[in-house]
This record gives sequence, structure tokens and C-alpha cells, in this order.
Amino acid sequence: MSGPAPSVAAVRVAVRRALAGTAAGDLVLVACSGGADSLALAAAAAFVAPRLGLRAGAVTVDHGLQPGSAERAAEVAGVLRRLALDPVDSVAVAVGTAGGPEGAARAARYAALDWVADERGAAAVLLGHTRDDQAETVLLRLARGSGARSLAGMAPRAGRYLRPLLDLDRATVHAAAAEMGLSPWQDPHNTDPAYARSRVRHDALPVLERVLGPGIAAALARSAGLLRDDADALDGWADQAAAQAGLAPGELDVAVLAALPRAVRTRVLRRAALAAGCPAGALTAGHVAELDRLVSDWRGQTHVDLPGGRRGRRMGARVVLGG
Amino acid sequence: MSGPAPSVAAVRVAVRRALAGTAAGDLVLVACSGGADSLALAAAAAFVAPRLGLRAGAVTVDHGLQPGSAERAAEVAGVLRRLALDPVDSVAVAVGTAGGPEGAARAARYAALDWVADERGAAAVLLGHTRDDQAETVLLRLARGSGARSLAGMAPRAGRYLRPLLDLDRATVHAAAAEMGLSPWQDPHNTDPAYARSRVRHDALPVLERVLGPGIAAALARSAGLLRDDADALDGWADQAAAQAGLAPGELDVAVLAALPRAVRTRVLRRAALAAGCPAGALTAGHVAELDRLVSDWRGQTHVDLPGGRRGRRMGARVVLGG
Repeated sequence: MSGPAPSVAAVRVAVRRALAGTAAGDLVLVACSGGADSLALAAAAAFVAPRLGLRAGAVTVDHGLQPGSAERAAEVAGVLRRLALDPVDSVAVAVGTAGGPEGAARAARYAALDWVADERGAAAVLLGHTRDDQAETVLLRLARGSGARSLAGMAPRAGRYLRPLLDLDRATVHAAAAEMGLSPWQDPHNTDPAYARSRVRHDALPVLERVLGPGIAAALARSAGLLRDDADALDGWADQAAAQAGLAPGELDVAVLAALPRAVRTRVLRRAALAAGCPAGALTAGHVAELDRLVSDWRGQTHVDLPGGRRGRRMGARVVLGG
Repeated sequence: MSGPAPSVAAVRVAVRRALAGTAAGDLVLVACSGGADSLALAAAAAFVAPRLGLRAGAVTVDHGLQPGSAERAAEVAGVLRRLALDPVDSVAVAVGTAGGPEGAARAARYAALDWVADERGAAAVLLGHTRDDQAETVLLRLARGSGARSLAGMAPRAGRYLRPLLDLDRATVHAAAAEMGLSPWQDPHNTDPAYARSRVRHDALPVLERVLGPGIAAALARSAGLLRDDADALDGWADQAAAQAGLAPGELDVAVLAALPRAVRTRVLRRAALAAGCPAGALTAGHVAELDRLVSDWRGQTHVDLPGGRRGRRMGARVVLGG
């Protein structure tokens, strides 16, 4: 008797590892677009979950963005049921416009996944992102000049969301889908150059691969993992420092701030600005650097204007964040 | 009376800021290849230094890698003397092979600069790297899957080496060189696709610019600056943690290590491995991750093999690094 193909085994092992922390009897849901990655994930979960005493179901989201999307969602749900996943939910969402087309679709999708997970009482929701998706995310975020938390890309686990395939390359996962006889749907958005992610996938990464040598996707994912550890450590430090520096809501002790390394101080100041009501999307590293100058390079400047009509003020030995 | 062109003013302001910490009477040396960036830097230093009560000289290094390099070095030295820089030294070096062609040339160049700086008693050596050089460096290091310290790129200051132009883009610095009537030398290596940096400059960055939008070089440099702060903070934490965890040379207390966030613990373990004699270039994040498992995921494994014939061992409540 021959075992499964190596690609299939790799996907199953990854799913088994990701589910190690789940309790017998729990329900896990696979978020499945019908693409090769999430179909392979669904099939692996259907295989692995019963062997761990878990129940495995699935959700597919109809974004309503393309003609025939409802029929396609129904087809995907049928495929998922034939994999013996249960329950299988197909949810239609209305995609707004806030945050651009990709951001709006993502927001609607996660809202639907959260809703189904709550309704079904799921312990975990599995997402099919691969190492190549991670590399694309890191590259997109590099283009914004982001810090460690953002460059850390997608988390292997975040709350109940798990990404079991994040250490596997797309080629392996696609091979597994083919080995398991699955017929993936090709999302035309994935090759549409109107989408930044599609351009990164089809234009940027192949050129980087050619210029810098093979393995660039793996390298980007490795950097992301290291930066995730860094961001976790620094966020933990900033938690403590914020408690020590906080004099009252929106008031920070300059002497405590001044004694911190800049990486920690700027994290404390950024949080204080967010807590004071600055919109997260509008608060840039440049704003935070100006706030930092109220502490580290103070030459009498009275305040810094922040997004959302907020201000940071130097008042004696305090920095005050407010309206 | 009209002032200098904006590009010239920008370069002079940058040099003035970088020299703010230098004492009157000090000698500063400009490392000059004869290219546009370092020629503009040399001319700006010749203008700024006397106004700050400093003496400005220059060094040009003949790498001996191209026919006519000695004549070119003599020409560059002549240009530098006509800028009223004094002393001007031209140093011929023998480039080895260790570390690849770019690494070997860099090692020989810095050895020569160090030697001249020592001989001349220079307080600072100015290097002409721009924000675009920084972006190229970050991209080259991303291809290796590096951590924050490496992705932080080149330091604005490191010991006596200063990089005054690191926040200016190459176009501005080249414009300044033209405005000042300088005739830069075009290093053929800069357009030779045999060199990874040249491929990054001429192939990778233009594609990223097209795919991800303008400003990618500035974004990479901004990320590098944030990651430098992070790496400084975490290295400081690791200093303290190493002192607390150290029981004897090469011996670390598992309980202290286990209480650290992974980003700090891996830095402590990496240093211990280097101190035990692992060659820095051969010690990868993968080796350090294996060492980390002796603490964070110990299942009875007795040791980890490390480069340079070294080993990390779990011995009771200690991790021991040695031969």
C-alpha cells in the first residue's frame, strides 16, 4: 500500500499541526473560495479532522462582484459537501467601497466568516494562505514603508483564525489539489493587473526571482517571521512602558518616555494617539516621529497636529494627546 | 544675490547636520570614488567644513580592478585638490576574493579608509551613500530572509563613518553635482549585470516602482529606519538578558531564557554561539531556531550542530555552547 503523494502529505501534516491545540469535539471551519489553495485545505481538513476527533465544516463567501458568482458559490458548496464537510455554509455579502476594492472585499469576507463562526460555534476558522501569499503581502507592505508589525505579514494564528499552509509554497499546495482530484476555480481577479496583488504576483516577484536569485518568496516569508517575533517583543515592552508613563488618560510622563529606546517610545506614543481618537489608517510614522520630537528633540514647539483633528501637546513635563 | 540651487543647498544642509557633533579643528575625510554622489559630497564638505571651523580632506581608493584605474585615481585626487580639500590621499589596494567580488572590494576599501583615517587622525569619514543606495541594500538583504538588523541597511553613523546623504535621493545629489560643475566618473560596474546591486538598480527597483507605485525607494528606506530603531532596542534588551542568563562563559540559564520573548532569546543565543566561535557568516537564523528549541521546545534532544564545528547542548537547566 502506497501512502499519499508528498504534496498531499505535506498539506495534511500542516493542517494536523495547526489543529494540535483544538479540543476533541470542536468544530473547525475552512474558509474556501473554490481556488486550489483553499480547496486543498478543505480536503485535508476533511481527512485530518475526524482522525483528531474534530468536526470539520466549511464556508464559502459569494462577494457578488462577478456575473455568475452565486452559481459558483453553490458549486463550491456542493464540492465541499461531497468532501463530507458538514456543515457547509454559503454566504452572500455586499461589498462596500471603503478601503479600495481589495480592502472592501476583505472586510466583507471576514465579517461573514466571523458571523458564521459565531452562529456555528466554531473553535477555529482555517484560511488557505500560502508562503507565496505571505511574500506578496510583505512586498505590498514594503511599498508603504511600514514597520515590523506590518512587514510581519499575516499571522499563522490570530484569535480563532489559523493559516496552516503559511509555510508551504503555492506549487506544493496546487500539486496537492491536483493529486486529490480537485477542480479548482480560477479567480480572474488573480490575473487582473488592476489589482496590486496580481501585479506583485505576476510582475514583481518573477523579476525579483530573476534578479536576486531563486527563493525570494521563502526569504520574504522568513524575514516576516523574524519581524513578527520582534514586533511581539516590542509590543510587550510598550505595554509595560505605557503603564509606567501614563499619568492620566491621554497624559504621558516625559521623563519616563525619554528613558525608553526610540522603538518603544514611538510605539507608546502611537498607541496614545490612537486612544485619543486618531484614525489608525491616517496616522503615519511621520506623525509619530513629530510626536517623538516633543520628547527627544524638544525646542519649545507647543504641539503637533494629528489626523482626526487631534493634537499632541508638550505641557511641562507631560505630553498630552487630545482634541 | 541668488543662493545656491536647491539641490546644492540640500546636500550642504545634509553635510552640515551630519557634522554637528564634530569639534572645531577636527579633520573630516570624504571617501570619494569620483562618482557623482561622492564628488557632490566632497564639494559640499569643502564648502561647509571651514564654516564650521573644521578641516576637510579626502581619500580615493584605487581598487586596481579595471584597466587605467591608477590614472583615474590620480585624476580624482586632482579634482579633490582643486576643491581645496587637504590632505588628499590616493590609496591603492589589493582586492582579494573572500566574500565575492563586491564583498572583497568593500573589505579592501574600508581597510584602506580605516588606515588613512588613523594615519591622518581624522575624527570622521564621510560616505556618499544616498537613499537609493539604501533601498538597494535593503532589497539585497530581503533576498536573504534577514532579520531587522540586516534589513535596517546602512547606518547614518557607525563609529567614525557618517553617511550625510542617506536621506537624499540620488537624483537630487546628481543634480547638485551638475550644478556645482563637477564631472563625475561613471563606474562601469554600476551598470554591469554581473553585479547584484547593478541588477537591483536597473531591473528590480524600476519594476517595483511600476508595479507598486512611485516612491518605493523612499518606502524601503523608511522601513529600514524603523527597523534600525527596533534592532537597537532589542539589542539593548538582549545585552541585559545575556548578562542575567549567563552562568559562565558559554553557559546560559534555561529558566531565564524561557522567560524572554523569542525575539530576545534568539538574540541572546545567537551571540552566545558567536562568542563560542561559530563563524558569523555561516550561522543562520535556522541554526539559531534549532538552538531555541533546546529551550522552548525541548523534547530530550541532546545537542544542535553549529557551523565551525561548534555545538549547542542542553545540559539539565543549562544551555551550553562550545566545541
